[in-house]
Parts: sequence; C-alpha cells; structure tokens
Amino acid sequence: MGESRIPFNKPYMSGRETEYIAEAVASGKICGNGIFTKKCQAFFEKKYGFKKALLTSSCTDALEMAAILTGVGPGDEVIIPSYTFVSTALAFVRQGATIVFADSRADNPNIDTAKIEALVTPRTKVIVPVHYAGVACEMDEIMDIAKRHNLLVVEDAAQAIDSYYTGKDGVRRPLGSIGHLGCFSFHETKNIIAGEGGMLTINDERFMARSEIIWEKGTNRSQFFRGEVNKYGWVDIGSSFLPSELQSAFLWAQIENIERIQSKRIEHWNKYRAAIEPLQEKLHCRLPDIPQCNNAHMFYVVFDSLEHRTKFVEFMRERSILCVFHYLSLHSSPFYAEKHDGRALPESDRYSDTLLRLPMYYELPVEEVIAAIREFAAIPRQKNEKQVQYRADRS
Amino acid sequence: MGESRIPFNKPYMSGRETEYIAEAVASGKICGNGIFTKKCQAFFEKKYGFKKALLTSSCTDALEMAAILTGVGPGDEVIIPSYTFVSTALAFVRQGATIVFADSRADNPNIDTAKIEALVTPRTKVIVPVHYAGVACEMDEIMDIAKRHNLLVVEDAAQAIDSYYTGKDGVRRPLGSIGHLGCFSFHETKNIIAGEGGMLTINDERFMARSEIIWEKGTNRSQFFRGEVNKYGWVDIGSSFLPSELQSAFLWAQIENIERIQSKRIEHWNKYRAAIEPLQEKLHCRLPDIPQCNNAHMFYVVFDSLEHRTKFVEFMRERSILCVFHYLSLHSSPFYAEKHDGRALPESDRYSDTLLRLPMYYELPVEEVIAAIREFAAIPRQKNEKQVQYRADRS
Repeated sequence: MGESRIPFNKPYMSGRETEYIAEAVASGKICGNGIFTKKCQAFFEKKYGFKKALLTSSCTDALEMAAILTGVGPGDEVIIPSYTFVSTALAFVRQGATIVFADSRADNPNIDTAKIEALVTPRTKVIVPVHYAGVACEMDEIMDIAKRHNLLVVEDAAQAIDSYYTGKDGVRRPLGSIGHLGCFSFHETKNIIAGEGGMLTINDERFMARSEIIWEKGTNRSQFFRGEVNKYGWVDIGSSFLPSELQSAFLWAQIENIERIQSKRIEHWNKYRAAIEPLQEKLHCRLPDIPQCNNAHMFYVVFDSLEHRTKFVEFMRERSILCVFHYLSLHSSPFYAEKHDGRALPESDRYSDTLLRLPMYYELPVEEVIAAIREFAAIPRQKNEKQVQYRADRS
Repeated sequence: MGESRIPFNKPYMSGRETEYIAEAVASGKICGNGIFTKKCQAFFEKKYGFKKALLTSSCTDALEMAAILTGVGPGDEVIIPSYTFVSTALAFVRQGATIVFADSRADNPNIDTAKIEALVTPRTKVIVPVHYAGVACEMDEIMDIAKRHNLLVVEDAAQAIDSYYTGKDGVRRPLGSIGHLGCFSFHETKNIIAGEGGMLTINDERFMARSEIIWEKGTNRSQFFRGEVNKYGWVDIGSSFLPSELQSAFLWAQIENIERIQSKRIEHWNKYRAAIEPLQEKLHCRLPDIPQCNNAHMFYVVFDSLEHRTKFVEFMRERSILCVFHYLSLHSSPFYAEKHDGRALPESDRYSDTLLRLPMYYELPVEEVIAAIREFAAIPRQKNEKQVQYRADRS
C-alpha cells in the first residue's frame, strides 16, 4: 500500500516534532504523564471546553477507559452503529457487555437516530454515537433519548477533532464535549497525529476522579503526586492507558500547527467537492450530506453499487492512486454474527459495499487526483448500459 | 522527583533516536507494525531465541495479551508473587481470574518456589514468576510444577531484558524464552527504553496465530497483509496493543547500543557492590543474593528495618540523591485485601518496608553516590544503640 505514487494517507511532520522529543528526553521523563502530556491535555480542555482530557495510547484505549467508567458488565446492553471500527464495540465486549447494533442513516453513515429508541431495553446502559468522517450525529436527539431512559452517552469522536455540532439552541459545541464521555484518535490517518494515540474526554464530574485511577493502572498515583494521599497503591481496575512522552511531544508539535493543518485539509476537501459535484452521475456515485460542521477529516463518496466502486478503485490504482473502502458491518463479522440478534442492517451493509475514501493528507497533490477522476468520468459508456443495482447479497 | 541532583532514573538517548523517528515519518507509516517494529521484533527473536516477539505499548499490555491467551476467566486461579507491580496481577484480574498471592524468598524478592505447590488447586491455570531486578526465578522447578499440574507459565520479565537462567542441564537460556509466554518492559526506567513500551514473547506454538489477532484489535489484519486471507475483519477479542513507530524507532536506536548500555550499567553495578559490601553492617543493610545472571537492571539493598531505610533515604535526599523503595504487597492493597484469602506473606511485607533502590542509569555519576553512602556509614553510632528490629505491624 505504501508503494502508490499517491497513497491514501501520509503522516506529516509539521515542524518541531523531533525537537520536542529531544526536549522530553532532556527533561528526564519520557514515560507517561510528563510535561508534553499535560500541555496537550490543557490545550484540549481550554480550546474545546472538555471538563477533563486524558491522553491515551490509542482511541481503543480511550474507548476501553470509557467502557470501564460506564460500569457495564455481563447482561448490560450497549447500542453501537454496525458501520464503525472494531474498537468501538470491542472496548465494551471486553467488559462483558452485549452489543446491540444499530443501522446507519440513508444519507450518511452516522447512526440512524430514529431507530435508536426501539433498541432500548431495561438492560440498555450506553449509547455510542460515532461521528463518521468527523460529522456530528444528532446529539440533541441522542442526549434526549439517553436522559429519558437514564443512559450514558459515549461519543466515538475518533475522527472528529476540531469538529462541531450546532444544536437546536443555536449553540455550536465541539464534538466530544457533549456526551458524558468522548473518545478521540491521533492515529496517523487523523488530522493531527501521534503515530498511535488517543484521548478520553470527561464531561461529567462523576467520572473525573476514577478516570485518573483507571488511566494509571488502577493506582491513585496522580492523587499521591498532588499530595492528596500520603502513599499510593492499588485501588481499582485499570490498565496502562497513558501514552509515552514521545507520542505527546510529537502531538504537541502538531497541535501548534492545527490551524494551518486544518485550513490545508479544508482546501483539499473543497477542491474535491467542487470537482466531483458535477460528475456524480457520470461516476455513478453521490456525495454525502454534510448537515453539520466538516473538519475535513475524510473525503468519501458513495457509489451506486459495489461494481461501480470496484471499477473506479481499479482505474485509480492503475494510475498509482490509492482509494480505500472502509468498515465491514460488525453485526455480520465472524466474531459477532452468531451473537447478533439477526436484524438486517441494510444501510450499514450498503456503506460497506459502496463507500470509498479518496486520498487525504496535508501534502496531498489534490489536483492530480482530481485529474484522474475527470479522466475516469470522461470514459464513454454505452448509452444503454444496464444500470447495475446495489446488491445486498454480497458474496 | 525530577529536581534531585542525582535522580533515581534518567532516560538516555543513545544515538540515532530522533533520526530514526524522522525516518519512520518519511517512510509514510508511524502507526503500529511498521518497519521499526518489525526490525525490533526480528532482533529480539534472533538474539534471544523467542519463537515470536510482538512489541506492545507497555508491559501491562503484554501481560494483558498473555492473560487473554492463557484463556483464564472467572473461577480460574493465577499464582503471582505479592511483591510485584500492580500490572502483573491487574492483567489477569481484567480477565476475571482470581489472584492467589505467593510470598517471596527470604534471600531475594523472587517467588518462593518451595511454597508454590501448596497453592495449586484444581482451579489453578497459570503461574507468573516475576524475575525481580532481572534475576531469574528457579525456572526448572517452576516449569516442573507447571508440567505436573498442567499449568501455563507466564514469565514477568519486565526487568529482565538481556538476562539469563542457567538450568540444571547447564544450558544458559534468556529470560522470557522459558515459560509459555514472556512479558518485557521498555519503560523509561528499564535498560533499553521506548518511553512506555513492552513486548510479548511467545514460546509455545499454540499461541502464535492468536497472538497476532489479539494484538491488532481482534482482527486478522496481519494474515490479510501476508495474503493468507482475502479480507480482514473482526474475528476475536483483543485491543490496540501495538506501539506506534515513534516508540519502535526510538527503541531500535537503543537496541543498536545495547552492548554499550549493558556494559556501562554492569560497571556501575559492580562499583556499587564493591563499595557497599564492606559497609553492610554499618549501613544496617545487606546485599541480595544474585544466584543467577545479573543484567544490572537495578541495584537494591535490604535494610534491617524500616527505620534504618528511612534514615538512609533522608540522608541521601539531603544530598539531593534520590533513592526509592519499591512495591507495597499487593495482597494487602486497598483493591485486593478483602479478596485475599488472609494468609500472611511476611517476606513480601518485609521487602515493602526495607528494600531500597539506588540510582541507576547510563549517565549515573556512581562515584558521587558511593561517596555519600560512605559518608553515611562513617557517622558514629552509639555503641549501645538499641538494635531496631523489623516490624511487621507497619502503620
């Protein structure tokens, strides 16, 4: 995959990354919870208004922390979209919870809010909306369902750094600051990166003290260093969820350049949109609805069928441009198919078959990709070409 | 703690660390399982003869992988020394297992092999010997017990990189290569470091295929990239256990210098030993028995009492030299005290109260520490000073 002339993703050193890593080493501390971790956390808390932010080794780790904090266990149910990354579900599975998979919307891959309430049972404890491509789920409605049924909401904001939701009250709120807990990723494919990395945001004060303990292997070490207890020891479950200062120092350099990174990504995104919009029919695809803020995390299109997608992918691959599809529905995965309750989730399956992501990274030569797309769109089709319909029965 | 003139630990850049990080970025991949991860794993497999090595984000992560691979769950028992880091037990607690704590030896903090067999019940599934300070547990006897009772052995080799065990057959084997599974740490306090980092070693072929899947969030992604399956998906439990290439690139630079790092540490260690040996009586401490290979991970002494240790620590602190104690017995921790079966583990408690670690790192000015120790030893004591006995009833 790394051999394409235009890869799908390319990590980017924005400036002082290695300088800060050397600074961390010189400071005498490169394990977790050092100077750069604290600086990153303070930045995110201030800029986005999270009550508390804790960096983690990955978004998977942030999701595991969230799953532990929600207190779910065997017999409890968690509502999660099927069209998401394995970790969204896996974190709750590790706690023994049962996953109840929800379908996506017809107009974008986010969870179909209208179908959530029918999935709520007396055993439901948590809803996990995933802000696909950094575009907000309908948080007003989701928080309302949660309130009425006494559920917790964990935002999977893996792709949603620097993205916002404007609610019915007209207030624009950062994603990850609305649910009780939020989870972000700084994986190399994200807008700002740490190689592998993530962040848990805590917006409900009930979870603050315990979150620090779970983060540091179930010990009250953070309290000890603040002088709140006179020795520290093993007080709870947890894991080593905190990243090394190598990652945090790298991330800090990215944070310093977040405005520049974001405006470049938005520029690429707008060029893609302007070029593809008039070609949708010729490409046999359509652009997604972006009802809310767009953080330009991803540019994706949805083809009319798997065959159309495959033709396009192959055409681009011949030009050494790597376009990649995304998730396979989790409800029909080898691990969960037998545990799933059997409901069909056709929209999730459709996105599995027809959604395609175009290359997106800071240094992307977007015009070259657009030129190739235009070339593909210009291939003459037989006028009476049989319209290929979407097939749910993938083999 | 970082403000001491001579800290307890100081991470060390051995050479090309930041250069390799820049190289990883330029390669287009800084998430997990990239070039440097593969190079490190291949190095460890070749040098130490592990059947398979997988880098992890921390030793905690390696222990969690081991716990998952052993298949333990609620009702199963795992024998672990009480004098160890929280993670040794926590990893198995997360899988729902019951921890049966064992006491340490009288002559060093390793698990007291003679007492293991009495702890074995029909529910016992795993023994976890911890090679304290990098010094081998009695692996012949432990593997024999495991074999007779059909148990698995997970070596907690967090401190034991580049250390060895010579068995009754006279063969010298690297620690972490003897048990079914082994777990290492590359935390900044270790001999070679990645800030936070670890490694799982797999010495039993039964666990090989599954270890890769658990490592990559329960997906068969590694098999997919080797062309063994034609798509990858969710097939098992797991987590994001793999480190970023930032950590692996850093570690690779350390690995390149492992011989130089080891000889410098051994030099420090030998100087400590030569200086302290004749002063043991005056210091009210004794040096540990090192019955096996010493990888110079740690230099520790065991005082006659908590009071003697406290006096020494304070004297050194006044000279801005940071000496630190180590674990508190896990069987009496706030988290586990009520779950423990009530057996007294006096040796573990004694090490909690009386063991002290002296500063140890590559750039250590060891002569300065030794000079301060000599100064302490030279303080005249009243001849009829009442001998302070070890008190088990710590308050």
